[in-house]
Parts: sequence; C-alpha cells; structure tokens
Amino acid sequence: MPTVDFVKGHATMNDFVLIADHQGVHPLSAEQVGFLADRHAGIGADGVIRVARAEAVADVPVGIDPQLWFMDYYNCDGSAAEMCGNGTRVFARYLLEHGLVGGSSFEIGTRAGVKRIDLVDGGYRTDLGHWSLSRGDEAAERGMDAVVQVLGAGDPLPALSLDLGNPHTVVALPPSMDLSALDLHRPPHVDPHPQDGTNVEFVRAHSPGHISMRVYERGVGETLSCGTGAAAAALATWWWSGQPLEELDWTVDVPGGSLGVRITGDRVSLSGPAELVAHGQVTLPG
Amino acid sequence: MPTVDFVKGHATMNDFVLIADHQGVHPLSAEQVGFLADRHAGIGADGVIRVARAEAVADVPVGIDPQLWFMDYYNCDGSAAEMCGNGTRVFARYLLEHGLVGGSSFEIGTRAGVKRIDLVDGGYRTDLGHWSLSRGDEAAERGMDAVVQVLGAGDPLPALSLDLGNPHTVVALPPSMDLSALDLHRPPHVDPHPQDGTNVEFVRAHSPGHISMRVYERGVGETLSCGTGAAAAALATWWWSGQPLEELDWTVDVPGGSLGVRITGDRVSLSGPAELVAHGQVTLPG
Repeated sequence: MPTVDFVKGHATMNDFVLIADHQGVHPLSAEQVGFLADRHAGIGADGVIRVARAEAVADVPVGIDPQLWFMDYYNCDGSAAEMCGNGTRVFARYLLEHGLVGGSSFEIGTRAGVKRIDLVDGGYRTDLGHWSLSRGDEAAERGMDAVVQVLGAGDPLPALSLDLGNPHTVVALPPSMDLSALDLHRPPHVDPHPQDGTNVEFVRAHSPGHISMRVYERGVGETLSCGTGAAAAALATWWWSGQPLEELDWTVDVPGGSLGVRITGDRVSLSGPAELVAHGQVTLPG
Repeated sequence: MPTVDFVKGHATMNDFVLIADHQGVHPLSAEQVGFLADRHAGIGADGVIRVARAEAVADVPVGIDPQLWFMDYYNCDGSAAEMCGNGTRVFARYLLEHGLVGGSSFEIGTRAGVKRIDLVDGGYRTDLGHWSLSRGDEAAERGMDAVVQVLGAGDPLPALSLDLGNPHTVVALPPSMDLSALDLHRPPHVDPHPQDGTNVEFVRAHSPGHISMRVYERGVGETLSCGTGAAAAALATWWWSGQPLEELDWTVDVPGGSLGVRITGDRVSLSGPAELVAHGQVTLPG
C-alpha cells in the first residue's frame, strides 16, 4: 500500500491525476490506475499520468533520451495509451511548476514519441506531429468518405476520416441541425466501421477559422474535450473549404472550453490552457 | 484565493470532499462548493462537508452545543442541506482519524440536529432519528399510497411514501421485473407527485431482512448509494411484511456496497463502512 504524491489538473475539463514518481520506483498496476481514476471510490479523472524519467518506464519507444521527462499515460480503465493531447498541457504545467523543466520551449517523451511544448499566450502549444486522411486522398476527394448515423437525427450524415495517431471521423452538421440538440448518449454508427473503432466529431462552422464541436470518444462516450478531436475537426473543415495549403490558425470551441489548432502542411499543433487544481497524498491499493 | 486542507472520502461510493476548517474561518460560498464538487474542473464529489465547531457555523439549529463538531453539509450544486446519512460516516471517520473525537460513541452536529455515531463491526452506525409514513397510517393501511411509472416498464407500480427528514417513495418490484434492467436515466413519474419532489427506491427482497435496491435521488439522478433511501427501503419492506414491531436488522445491498438498517420502533439507524481516500491542499476560487 504505497503512499504517493499526486496532483489533480485539467485542460478544457479533460482531467487527469498525475502521480509523482521522479525516481521511477512506482510503476502503476491497472488496479492502481483504475482506483485513482474512479470518480467515487478514488480521486477521479479521465486519465492517469505517471511523471517519471524515460529511463524508468518499461515500454519507452526506442531512441528517446533516457533523461527526458516521460508522460507515462493510462486510460481510466487501466490500459496504457500512446498519449493524450490535452494531457500534454497538464503534464507540461506540472513539469514547469515543479521546476523539472525551464524555458519557453521544451520536449517531453510519450509512447507516441518526443513532443515539443511551447509556452504561448494563455497556455501551451503541443506539436501533435503528422496527420493524414485515413482512406487516402482519392477516397476523400469529394470531401467525404464515410457516413455517420446519430440516434434520432434522420438520414446518415456524410463524414471525413482522419488519422492523428488515433482515428477520427468528422461530420459537418447541416444548417438544419442544432449541435447542442444531438443525442450522444449512444455511440453514433459509422459506415464503413473502422476495425479499431473511431472517435466521432460533430462540427458547426461559425466563420473562417472558428468552429464548435462535440465529440464522442471511442470506448468512453461524449467528453467535454478531446485534443486530437479538435485538431481533426479543424483539419476536416479546412479540407472541405478547399483553401490552399498554408499555415492556418483555428479556434475550436468544445464543451469544456476553447482550443487552438495550427495546421502547417502535414503537421498539426494544439494549444490551450492547463490548470493544476489540487495536490496531496494518496495511498494506492496493492 | 485561500488554500485549505481537504480530504476526499466515500461511504458505499457516495463521495465527499471534506474541508478542514477547525478554526471556523473559511465559510464556503456556493461557487467554492461547486468548484470542489466539480468532477472535471475541481476535485469532484457528490457533496462537500466543512469540518468546523458548531459555534463557527452561521445557521446551526438552536440548542446545539457550540463546541460540538458540526457537519456543515452542501450539495454539489452549492446549496446547504440538512445532512446526508452516508456522509455522517465519512465525517465520523475524519473526526476519529484526526483525533478530534475519541471513544466508541460520540455525537456530531448537523442541520437536522445532533446525531449519535457508534463504532460497529465494519464501520459506523448513525442514529437517523424518527421515521414516519408520509401520508399517515390510514392511507398506507393497504401497504401502498402512491404509484410510480418507470420509463419503458409497463403499468405504474404501487409504492409507499415515507419521511426520514427527506421524502422517499419505495416501490417493491414484481417478480417479473429485473432490478438491474430498470432504465433510471430519466426520473420516474410519481403520482400523486409530492410538492417538494421525492427520492424513489426500487426494491427486490431476497430473504427476511435482506433486500437489494436502486435509487433515483431527487434533483440528482441515479446514485450508487443513498443512506436514508436504504432506511426507507427496509422500512417499507418491513411494513409490507406485516411483522410485529420489534428491533429488526436489515442488510440493504446498493450498487455501491452494502448498508445495515436497524429499525427500533419509530427510530431507525444506518450502518456501513467509510473510507478516506486522499488528502492534500486545494486553492479555492474567489
């Protein structure tokens, strides 16, 4: 029953419990992650992040500097995950406030590789790396390569599939449909259904570079924010606009706040705020 | 922006943030309570308890010893409430672990008056005080005095109304209906509808003194446990059984665990476990 230091924080209401393991001596079991993320029996969060040097984490990708601070990320069900866009900002703020990194730009390690974090106005910007159309340019040429059916919303809606390290299917709502009125208590039906599932984003465009979205995360349900989902939503809206490929800044309103998405050719970055809410000690099971 | 000590705990998965205010200098605003209870932007809990001497709380009932430790209880929406049955056990454990009370029996102050806590096997027993039939013996003589309609469950089901300081309507499920299959995403419709609303308990009896229940809490939705709801469920099942009035011990299984209910004439007490999960510091807004 080890007692460890924790911090609770959130980024646009996507919330995390961070466990300080600077010496790398407390690898987390699935049971311990599940306990920390349990909103009633534990502390409660969407995900759990162990803060350790890369050298202390068992499944670090090849080639990562062993001294880099590593975002050892777990879903609330206890499974290890590559990373989480919103989580990188909370992780970055933790590193800065604990004096573990300095300066206005630094790198962190994740299971999806090294990510650069830049301090920007109102928060932190994370380079999410490359994006691509899931089914290639040809299938997406007409702007849509899938259809999505929402409970009680009439005919299936055309959608575009994108890959940001994780799969996304983006739907532009027709003017007749109200974003806030969508019933996302049940998973939307996506056709063709990707083998590993997909996150689904519903988008309403307000003006060039400004959209709102709601997201149904695969295996989770509707969430208040999804970083890679915001990036996918901006990318799809840009794709549909037919604008030339140049650096574009987008504002993406999500239920939990507002995110910035910058598209630079085949790369995309995500920016937004991060808050550390509480800190203390917790005794882990097992 | 005061920084205060907090503890997070739960009793059969009914969870609470306790704020240490032993000197009584940090009365909580509705905004601060809402922040603490917010499961994404704050720490997260069903309710918030300020731990203070009775003399330091503004709206203490007349006649409470000013030196008594007072459970200054708030719902997650920031409104002050009389008390919470499950919350008394977490409060009791907090007082014991912080050395603020001692012995195997002690009193606490609540807005519903002084409550006695006894240490018992596996946890704590709280005297909930008097119970009564909401519509009197005459209306309840046939065992039922209301009907409850659940979404998609066919005909309305007969029910009994009880008062435990807060209102309850208890439904005994017919053998043809599965407790776990009830759809409690929407509030059940109660007829006649009490002016101030009502909590609704659905009960399945297993054997004499052993029942399972699910509860829809008024203004909240389905919860994993409700202490006064468990007491109401046991009381209604006893009333329907036609057994003579004598001391009876009941085991009430709720989704978040198991509770004990003891009926002693016109008084009822609730027992069960309580856990303190984490502690630390949190900076309050405002």
